[in-house]
Amino acid sequence: MKVTVCGCGRWGSFLAWYAAQQCSHTVTLYGRENSTHFQQLVQTHSNELITFPDTVQFSSNLRGAVQSAEVIVISVGAQSLRSFLQELTAAECAGKTFVLCMKGIEATTGLRLTQVVREFLPDVALAVWVGPGHVQDFLQGIPNCMVIDSDSMEVKRRVVKIFESPLIRFYFGDDLLGNEVGAAAKNVIGIAAGMLDGLNKTALKGALMSRGTREIGRLIQAMGGREITAYGLAHLGDYEATVFSRYSHNRKFGEDFVQNVHYEKLAEGVPTVTALLQLGERYAVELPICKAVDSVINGGQEPNRVLSGLFLRSIKMEF
Amino acid sequence: MKVTVCGCGRWGSFLAWYAAQQCSHTVTLYGRENSTHFQQLVQTHSNELITFPDTVQFSSNLRGAVQSAEVIVISVGAQSLRSFLQELTAAECAGKTFVLCMKGIEATTGLRLTQVVREFLPDVALAVWVGPGHVQDFLQGIPNCMVIDSDSMEVKRRVVKIFESPLIRFYFGDDLLGNEVGAAAKNVIGIAAGMLDGLNKTALKGALMSRGTREIGRLIQAMGGREITAYGLAHLGDYEATVFSRYSHNRKFGEDFVQNVHYEKLAEGVPTVTALLQLGERYAVELPICKAVDSVINGGQEPNRVLSGLFLRSIKMEF
Repeated sequence: MKVTVCGCGRWGSFLAWYAAQQCSHTVTLYGRENSTHFQQLVQTHSNELITFPDTVQFSSNLRGAVQSAEVIVISVGAQSLRSFLQELTAAECAGKTFVLCMKGIEATTGLRLTQVVREFLPDVALAVWVGPGHVQDFLQGIPNCMVIDSDSMEVKRRVVKIFESPLIRFYFGDDLLGNEVGAAAKNVIGIAAGMLDGLNKTALKGALMSRGTREIGRLIQAMGGREITAYGLAHLGDYEATVFSRYSHNRKFGEDFVQNVHYEKLAEGVPTVTALLQLGERYAVELPICKAVDSVINGGQEPNRVLSGLFLRSIKMEF
Repeated sequence: MKVTVCGCGRWGSFLAWYAAQQCSHTVTLYGRENSTHFQQLVQTHSNELITFPDTVQFSSNLRGAVQSAEVIVISVGAQSLRSFLQELTAAECAGKTFVLCMKGIEATTGLRLTQVVREFLPDVALAVWVGPGHVQDFLQGIPNCMVIDSDSMEVKRRVVKIFESPLIRFYFGDDLLGNEVGAAAKNVIGIAAGMLDGLNKTALKGALMSRGTREIGRLIQAMGGREITAYGLAHLGDYEATVFSRYSHNRKFGEDFVQNVHYEKLAEGVPTVTALLQLGERYAVELPICKAVDSVINGGQEPNRVLSGLFLRSIKMEF
């Protein structure tokens, strides 16, 4: 089957490798002409982690790459999804299956990523692919469980059939809203975890997991999803990879931030926390962990005071 | 206030130090005359981690130690709680407050530890003290959140007041059954986590957390507690300390077991898994993770096949 992966960052590049190597699809990896990642891929057919089979094509012609495939996997920065979609027309996307392999919420609007897609492509088959898993682990052959969700059971089945392999065991989600919000929000919990690590309060990551899942579950429920989804693979199930793993970019960002270590770029959880706080206001849900992360990153508050206040404040009932 | 701590293992010894050092109580630490731990304490006023203030008394006279105190903290092996209680009479315990600082379920009966206590001491004030926290972290001044639960709100308040400090922030539990079962069960999840580490499948600890909490939540609910309690400090909140920490005895046991490394003694999670499987049958709840751990430890099954089967079996709905 012909699959085009849009986005040649670490995860997009892995997905192109995975679709070709593990699922034997005919794969095109799209990247922007001026992207250094893309130029490296074209020149070396590899990046710092992956060497691609020769069957994988590289293209900087978005429309051509999309038109030539039946399945379009999108893995671009959540905040640039809208501008990416503006380059496509509904006509050239008709009849194709789109899979969002991204974790975020649009910060300017508070929209879920499938909502952003629907503004441009109201009629295409659309699914999200979320849950735990680090490129480095997969490349070592360490398997994991992930989630495919969609408004359509038929689309879920099709996407799972297209991408299943011994390396990734897929589960069918049944709460698209909850899985999108949960997948995005875990990056914020990851930043908080990194802050605790950086403050030598790693022991509080247990309390963080207990409170984080509940905070996000409440938000999901208020938005019309199911609270239990926060305890599924897309959120709690992604905590090993996000709250504990040395590979987690968001965790490392939080650790570096509180230790005043220079960090290359903002983690995806930073715009996400802004979006979540908007949603918390809109749906009248208290989000103390998101507020704490925001007050440190964007409010210049003292991390130790804020994080300690979060977990060690006055005695109360647990629930 | 006069506090006697019964049990001079690592946790009991820490609690004696904590009650004296952090809460300024008059503390007696009881241990068995023939215990090597106890003999070391008497001779050196220290163990491998702790040096005790001179105010702490050491006694191997159980009845004397209990009679002389208003608050009795019990921290003995869960499977020897019954024989410990047989040495006490209701008369000498009357009017005292008992606090169980232990995590387990009686394997021979499937009884919760407070149920075992009630067989001997039906009328004493009784609370449990559970949740995350490693001695090594506390001794470094790293704070944590823990839970006090009891059938009596008045007892909860009293016990929190007696033991609160900047080092431990207590929350009031409101599901004694759920907190006892959850606290015991996390040791079984810890063993499973260690097995995944030992099999180089650490990445599956995310899925383990998601499924483990749900499995134990269902059991708690079937037993008459609240499912949400599995997501509180006593269970999920203890995963950092149990599923990830290098200090976790249960995690290390699981890792050593699958790697055929010699281990000193069985982890507390081993008798607990036997008890949980009994409860699963009694209350008709499927416990796939507990079954898997049991089939490896007690059934001689091949760990990699069993653990992979648990997470990587056929595609299905997540909930």
